[in-house]
Amino acid sequence: MKKVAVIMGSKSDLPVMQDAIDILKEFNIEVEVDIVSAHRTPEKLFDYGKNAHNRDIKVIIAGAGGAAHLPGMIASLSPLPVIGVPVKSSNSIDGWDSVLSILQMPGGVPVATVALNGAKNAGILAAQILGSSDASILEQIMDYKEGLKSKVIDSAKTL
Amino acid sequence: MKKVAVIMGSKSDLPVMQDAIDILKEFNIEVEVDIVSAHRTPEKLFDYGKNAHNRDIKVIIAGAGGAAHLPGMIASLSPLPVIGVPVKSSNSIDGWDSVLSILQMPGGVPVATVALNGAKNAGILAAQILGSSDASILEQIMDYKEGLKSKVIDSAKTL
Amino acid sequence: MKKVAVIMGSKSDLPVMQDAIDILKEFNIEVEVDIVSAHRTPEKLFDYGKNAHNRDIKVIIAGAGGAAHLPGMIASLSPLPVIGVPVKSSNSIDGWDSVLSILQMPGGVPVATVALNGAKNAGILAAQILGSSDASILEQIMDYKEGLKSKVIDSAKTL
Amino acid sequence: MKKVAVIMGSKSDLPVMQDAIDILKEFNIEVEVDIVSAHRTPEKLFDYGKNAHNRDIKVIIAGAGGAAHLPGMIASLSPLPVIGVPVKSSNSIDGWDSVLSILQMPGGVPVATVALNGAKNAGILAAQILGSSDASILEQIMDYKEGLKSKVIDSAKTL
Amino acid sequence: MKKVAVIMGSKSDLPVMQDAIDILKEFNIEVEVDIVSAHRTPEKLFDYGKNAHNRDIKVIIAGAGGAAHLPGMIASLSPLPVIGVPVKSSNSIDGWDSVLSILQMPGGVPVATVALNGAKNAGILAAQILGSSDASILEQIMDYKEGLKSKVIDSAKTL
Amino acid sequence: MKKVAVIMGSKSDLPVMQDAIDILKEFNIEVEVDIVSAHRTPEKLFDYGKNAHNRDIKVIIAGAGGAAHLPGMIASLSPLPVIGVPVKSSNSIDGWDSVLSILQMPGGVPVATVALNGAKNAGILAAQILGSSDASILEQIMDYKEGLKSKVIDSAKTL
Amino acid sequence: MKKVAVIMGSKSDLPVMQDAIDILKEFNIEVEVDIVSAHRTPEKLFDYGKNAHNRDIKVIIAGAGGAAHLPGMIASLSPLPVIGVPVKSSNSIDGWDSVLSILQMPGGVPVATVALNGAKNAGILAAQILGSSDASILEQIMDYKEGLKSKVIDSAKTL
Amino acid sequence: MKKVAVIMGSKSDLPVMQDAIDILKEFNIEVEVDIVSAHRTPEKLFDYGKNAHNRDIKVIIAGAGGAAHLPGMIASLSPLPVIGVPVKSSNSIDGWDSVLSILQMPGGVPVATVALNGAKNAGILAAQILGSSDASILEQIMDYKEGLKSKVIDSAKTL
Repeated sequence: MKKVAVIMGSKSDLPVMQDAIDILKEFNIEVEVDIVSAHRTPEKLFDYGKNAHNRDIKVIIAGAGGAAHLPGMIASLSPLPVIGVPVKSSNSIDGWDSVLSILQMPGGVPVATVALNGAKNAGILAAQILGSSDASILEQIMDYKEGLKSKVIDSAKTL
Repeated sequence: MKKVAVIMGSKSDLPVMQDAIDILKEFNIEVEVDIVSAHRTPEKLFDYGKNAHNRDIKVIIAGAGGAAHLPGMIASLSPLPVIGVPVKSSNSIDGWDSVLSILQMPGGVPVATVALNGAKNAGILAAQILGSSDASILEQIMDYKEGLKSKVIDSAKTL
Repeated sequence: MKKVAVIMGSKSDLPVMQDAIDILKEFNIEVEVDIVSAHRTPEKLFDYGKNAHNRDIKVIIAGAGGAAHLPGMIASLSPLPVIGVPVKSSNSIDGWDSVLSILQMPGGVPVATVALNGAKNAGILAAQILGSSDASILEQIMDYKEGLKSKVIDSAKTL
Repeated sequence: MKKVAVIMGSKSDLPVMQDAIDILKEFNIEVEVDIVSAHRTPEKLFDYGKNAHNRDIKVIIAGAGGAAHLPGMIASLSPLPVIGVPVKSSNSIDGWDSVLSILQMPGGVPVATVALNGAKNAGILAAQILGSSDASILEQIMDYKEGLKSKVIDSAKTL
Repeated sequence: MKKVAVIMGSKSDLPVMQDAIDILKEFNIEVEVDIVSAHRTPEKLFDYGKNAHNRDIKVIIAGAGGAAHLPGMIASLSPLPVIGVPVKSSNSIDGWDSVLSILQMPGGVPVATVALNGAKNAGILAAQILGSSDASILEQIMDYKEGLKSKVIDSAKTL
Repeated sequence: MKKVAVIMGSKSDLPVMQDAIDILKEFNIEVEVDIVSAHRTPEKLFDYGKNAHNRDIKVIIAGAGGAAHLPGMIASLSPLPVIGVPVKSSNSIDGWDSVLSILQMPGGVPVATVALNGAKNAGILAAQILGSSDASILEQIMDYKEGLKSKVIDSAKTL
Repeated sequence: MKKVAVIMGSKSDLPVMQDAIDILKEFNIEVEVDIVSAHRTPEKLFDYGKNAHNRDIKVIIAGAGGAAHLPGMIASLSPLPVIGVPVKSSNSIDGWDSVLSILQMPGGVPVATVALNGAKNAGILAAQILGSSDASILEQIMDYKEGLKSKVIDSAKTL
Repeated sequence: MKKVAVIMGSKSDLPVMQDAIDILKEFNIEVEVDIVSAHRTPEKLFDYGKNAHNRDIKVIIAGAGGAAHLPGMIASLSPLPVIGVPVKSSNSIDGWDSVLSILQMPGGVPVATVALNGAKNAGILAAQILGSSDASILEQIMDYKEGLKSKVIDSAKTL
């Protein structure tokens, strides 16, 4: 079964990254969660990046803060699409460090970057990627968008 | 046949966006190119966003500069994965405006943002998205990565 | 009767946008309030932008946070003057994202941008716009400015 | 006859500010041009701001660079709507100084800020302000927007 | 007797500006305190700037936040040295707005800018300016610097 | 005779700092020029800072680029008012480094900071400091300001 | 015995700098702690910088906030490697001031800069510097890195 | 013999990194130069980082631009001190991306960061690191600093 991997540099990133896990479960997509630190477990990073595509993982979501190297290094090692979530950690310089170290990848090795702390959008984007070749997931995305619309319409009525 | 759409807000974005077109052609992926301005052709934007998924387009790459609304509005209208390319246009404030207006999308409507002027990476990311459900494209991505490696190894020999 | 529209991307923007509503009421100007999300209710956005000038609305104030596309898209769709209020939402990168995605509009489609969270000034600006062709509102603006002056003079006496 | 004033802090701002003059002339709106320096001609600034509304001026466009005080000071002195154009001068810190000293006005004294060097949009915004109480100018604005659309549609055909 | 003026744009700046008043009193320098708003009391601004040098004021310290025009406008109107204190007000964009609108004055009209919220240093700088032509104040400055030194030496002993 | 010192961290700063020298000469104020590098000639820095006030120097203007420590270190060593000129040097990060390392001095040790590359204003400020206790220099400042005004009035006539 | 010096500009920096002291003690490296203010104790700065290498100190860690001149001035005075820790003090502009005034040193006088508030990493880097010529410290570094790895592996098990 | 490694992410970084090589040669320190791309040659990165300390390399200097991961990944893999040089590459956002992705390393894995394009200082820092356990190199550093001083003193004479 198709799976999305959600990995993060440190367990302290979990409160942010949980949003990706939750929305993927809402879409009934199987999620694999792990902690992989580019800087503290480089061997695990290597194994993870080299092998993810061999065990039914179709998209990798990677979140990290500060000088965030996890998404870019996974993108270096894996042929799969990698979604990067800049996490605003303590001692970050307002989040600019994680945003720029994930976004500004060199030519040849893209990371699909989402907003600061935007793990929910990372999950939706992963679903859209699966949906681009899977009509039932595409359908779910369209339903989800209808739901967003309804909520706004309803909230407008409460003004 | 599966297609990738490459759209941009103005013809002046073409020199940057051409990199996406070129790399997709290198991967033998069919590309559809168009100019769709969120601010000057809003009706075309609406039609484009609403209908792209009905005519074999699987991924949309959208590039724009300044207060760049094209990628986000297309993402609002289409269930497909949308890749945003911030273009550093003339009166841009060092590119920060296009980067932030593409990256910082609200929860529910992701845009897969790549580096400033990173159209080449947008093309590769689109290929990776197709490749996540298409073994032959995945293979091409792996070959491409091998090619990057060889070039670096070779350039190291010239030192 | 001449009206000013105050719209916002999400109900969570209301605490900021209320300042615009309040000051307009102080000037006895009729206000229409609504929630219109560029990203979640694009059809409503379209209808709103296309038709506002047909029902006595003379100025549109639009507030939004993050990658704020509402003011610019309304400006794309409506011939009316559009005032944009950058809202500093949670997960914003210090407000820079909303400021730049509202301010840096391309040539042809202006948004009259006010300060971060500056909804009160948006209301005053809307009144000034009406006042430029309505002597009684202009008079009110002059009185309002006199009032500002008196408050400063009085507060100086308390030193 | 209704007039728009276009003033600037220094003659060196004219190449940027000319765009406002040109577009207003295209709309057949009478334009008054002057140099008023907040820092070098404070008396002229005072006279200008105090009296503009008494001689048929309906909107003031003020452009300045660096620590740009002209738009805000004019807004302090005049009851008219004031549009501020941040000009990217030499020795500016990438334009941030003029943008922030025009945009971030305190509560009570708005300046309608446009993009860095966005004098053309300042002119269009002035026309929209006049148009909000003048059906023929509103018509022109709608025609202008149609023209923008056609140009994009045409340029798309040349791809 | 020689005096230093301490003025501010709003009474809400007083908690910051009090540091300037306190240190000047510590140096036994006469201080005159007032609220002068560039944007809300432009006439008072004018009178203040034009006349300060005629009533024994030797240095003017001016503090303001946001698009802070008070220091620069006073510098425009007065031949005296003007010290600007950028105040970090609520809704400021991290203080950058007040820093840049005070610091980046055009050629011809300097403002002696101190650190964000650096009112204490503004007071010391005013004392140094008086001290450059007054040996007893210069002496006090040298004593003050000795005091700073002693405090650091003492605190090092507590490690 | 009263003197102003103009020092800089490197001879490469001279093209910028020359503006301070020129304007001071225009005011007939004696200028002493030297190169004092905080990082390469720390002993000279110490001697200079410790002794300047003993040889008729009344104000020190110090210019430097990058991590600019010269103005702040001179302010640490001398009781005289120190004016800092942030110089935009080659590998500077857009000038932010020199601006912030001069401006953001800790409590107790002020530097009167002027705009990026604002050496001319540093010279005028030094003259104003001398002028605050010297009526003839104050007179010159007032004349200078009149001259600025005339130039603007004249340039307005050429429009 | 080889020593590492940990100095800081103010006792208020100690809570941040303690991390450097702690990790060095963990590595059984002798630490000398002192307060040396570039701006308030310039003579102590001078003595410290000139003599540190004569009393078995091998590396100097210097922490400071705002316009942080301590690391750079120590690097100017001492032939030893100097590690700079930017401290995020109150009234700092988000830490950018201390980062840039430590990092952007001119050619000839390097400071080894670590992350904002990154005193722990400064301690590890000092150990690595000693370790580059001391096999037993190098061994400890390798063990330390193994420890980091184990903690991540263990925390991954708790997911 | 003790060696310093100078590696870079791409041959296009060589013009910047050459400064490190040149200054090290000036100090008669053996240099090993290579191209190691974190993103394009991850296996080479791994081998390099894991083994450098086994072949007489004592310090590693790593330069890279954009989302610069090379210095941090080498620091992750090697127990040696790693000096990072942020390179200002073409599509960089003014160099902020490389600065922040090298500087803001997480606790446990330091990179000794030097100024943007500061390869010369990286070379000097490497020499200082060797010098901290090698009296003859320390001597050279002291001579080098004397040379810097002489050049400044001489240039001051040419004023």
